[in-house]
Amino acid sequence: MGQGTYVEQEYNRDMAYIADRILAEPDPAKAPGGETAVGEQEWPVEPGRYHLAVARACPWANRAIIVRRLLGLEGVISMGIAGPTHDEDSWTFDLDPGQVDPVLGIPRLKDAYEARVPGYPRGITVPAIVDIPTGAVVTNDFPQITQDLSTQWRAHHRAGAPDLWPEELREEMDAVNQRVFEDVNNGVYRCGFAGTQESYEKAYHRLFEALDWLQERLSTRRYLVGEHITEADVRLFTTLARFDAAYHGHFKCNRSKLSEMPVLWAYARDLYQTPGFGDTTDFGDIKSHYYEVHRDINPTGVVPLGPDPMVWLEPHGREELGGSPFGDGTAPGPIPEGERVPVANNPTLGLDGLVSASRA
Amino acid sequence: MGQGTYVEQEYNRDMAYIADRILAEPDPAKAPGGETAVGEQEWPVEPGRYHLAVARACPWANRAIIVRRLLGLEGVISMGIAGPTHDEDSWTFDLDPGQVDPVLGIPRLKDAYEARVPGYPRGITVPAIVDIPTGAVVTNDFPQITQDLSTQWRAHHRAGAPDLWPEELREEMDAVNQRVFEDVNNGVYRCGFAGTQESYEKAYHRLFEALDWLQERLSTRRYLVGEHITEADVRLFTTLARFDAAYHGHFKCNRSKLSEMPVLWAYARDLYQTPGFGDTTDFGDIKSHYYEVHRDINPTGVVPLGPDPMVWLEPHGREELGGSPFGDGTAPGPIPEGERVPVANNPTLGLDGLVSASRA
Repeated sequence: MGQGTYVEQEYNRDMAYIADRILAEPDPAKAPGGETAVGEQEWPVEPGRYHLAVARACPWANRAIIVRRLLGLEGVISMGIAGPTHDEDSWTFDLDPGQVDPVLGIPRLKDAYEARVPGYPRGITVPAIVDIPTGAVVTNDFPQITQDLSTQWRAHHRAGAPDLWPEELREEMDAVNQRVFEDVNNGVYRCGFAGTQESYEKAYHRLFEALDWLQERLSTRRYLVGEHITEADVRLFTTLARFDAAYHGHFKCNRSKLSEMPVLWAYARDLYQTPGFGDTTDFGDIKSHYYEVHRDINPTGVVPLGPDPMVWLEPHGREELGGSPFGDGTAPGPIPEGERVPVANNPTLGLDGLVSASRA
Repeated sequence: MGQGTYVEQEYNRDMAYIADRILAEPDPAKAPGGETAVGEQEWPVEPGRYHLAVARACPWANRAIIVRRLLGLEGVISMGIAGPTHDEDSWTFDLDPGQVDPVLGIPRLKDAYEARVPGYPRGITVPAIVDIPTGAVVTNDFPQITQDLSTQWRAHHRAGAPDLWPEELREEMDAVNQRVFEDVNNGVYRCGFAGTQESYEKAYHRLFEALDWLQERLSTRRYLVGEHITEADVRLFTTLARFDAAYHGHFKCNRSKLSEMPVLWAYARDLYQTPGFGDTTDFGDIKSHYYEVHRDINPTGVVPLGPDPMVWLEPHGREELGGSPFGDGTAPGPIPEGERVPVANNPTLGLDGLVSASRA
């Protein structure tokens, strides 16, 4: 993502999105181009038609990267990767040859928002799904995007893909997701962007109370909900992966490092060492993004060199809690060549096989 | 202290001081008020005549606080404690009733500098020794101040005071002190105030190479030099005490926390639990100072709540390396009532006897 405002000294995330959906059975009356307003239109699932715009730095986009990979949708929905830093205006495709997204042919993600809504007035956020024929953003409604990848694109999932939203667990997932979102995913930002000591302290206590609750919950169960990985784990993971690299120092979330919270740290390493998680984590982009973009809290833009990510490879010992990552399914295979995180940005990926399909 | 400049993007500490000395046998030809220039004058040791101005936040002043206490000079040299935050202009006595130093009768330390040198053009730094009769700064030459407390005030030390500058160890101490000063005491500032990524990275590597060297050195010896505590330990300690509370996050010294460097962390705890060290450490003032004063690197002035200082009380196990803190001498007694660190600023001091003379 990348947008929010200070309201009465407390950080509030802008949660207004283009909330169109891509559905297996869209309502023809709500088709794009018809009478239905932008934000309520329904688009058809169609392999090859859509492009997922992400930035590896962004925890909300990282969710979509992980889910797309776990479900094996790489050949069905292409992916465009914006660089870690962006200006006031837009995320940009500065990692690509010629600094232009090769599928959309645009340098700035904003161009795709403008193609949908000329003069688009809100934040230019990732993840966003773009309709390739028109070059227009279909949706940037991040919690809906990943859920729909699971539930609407099922016909195109790889063989062995996990069910990340099991029907019978949805109520429990919703409750867990809600608290994780409010207090953890968003909680770290509320600490970092607090405009006053008082709002910071409130946010800090709220965050660490939630982390204590998660430690308790995860002390007897391998995954957040049920016996296998679900999207609840994906949503928590992308915040944990950024905790010591960015939030601990940059956002002052410093009661302790993640690596000092034993249960949560073992849980995070367990996921990290599972294909789809560590192999989509780009510590280089993460640190660049937070420390270079937020000049209001890091005016020099200097990016810290620490900490050493190799600790993510330490054994986690969580197998003894039971459960299995993919249940009756299988781990995803190797990442397509062009989508791999550079080893320079994540040295744990340089040790052959340490974070790879073989660990599943 | 509290002064420095960015020169070619690299932080350089202003090392120009009023370098007068207070000596057991001053040269009458160099007496204050004579022909000798300010900075080269020699003052007589004289109980009750001088006032040591400090701030508990400041690592350089903390050295003087520790040394004065270890040597038992509390009844001989009074101490004025400035608050943790200061403006561009001066440290101030805002902790005192009426916000005026009770001995000097001044609100700002700058007044004592002006009393010595009208229009004093350099930084207003702590520690500074002030001549009470004239209210004028005698010296702010911090490395000389502590050394002279040991060597020139010997007649007034308490019974059982340690020799912090043993004659036979001085050459070794000088070499160790030099590297500790350049790479560690000052090294953390060089990281934090780096104006460019390049100068930060250089400083970071220099700092952690020095910390690795210290870990190696301290893995087989309890203290830095010799078998007992010397001023070399005092000088290293005041930086280590601030490491996780301030330097790790605020100055981006984040290869690891001190608490993740086992040898150095045990060494630091050993000292912390020795009277004179932990009981003069004010985490509240330390965090306020760094995070509130340096608005150029922390614009919001928000002060982090973490980390929990109670870990400083964990057993250190360093006794097995031999040596003893005070050799043939003894630990200092309790701190005078008016000089105690508030428990609110350092909760480790609230547990009766945990950090007290009884641990010596």
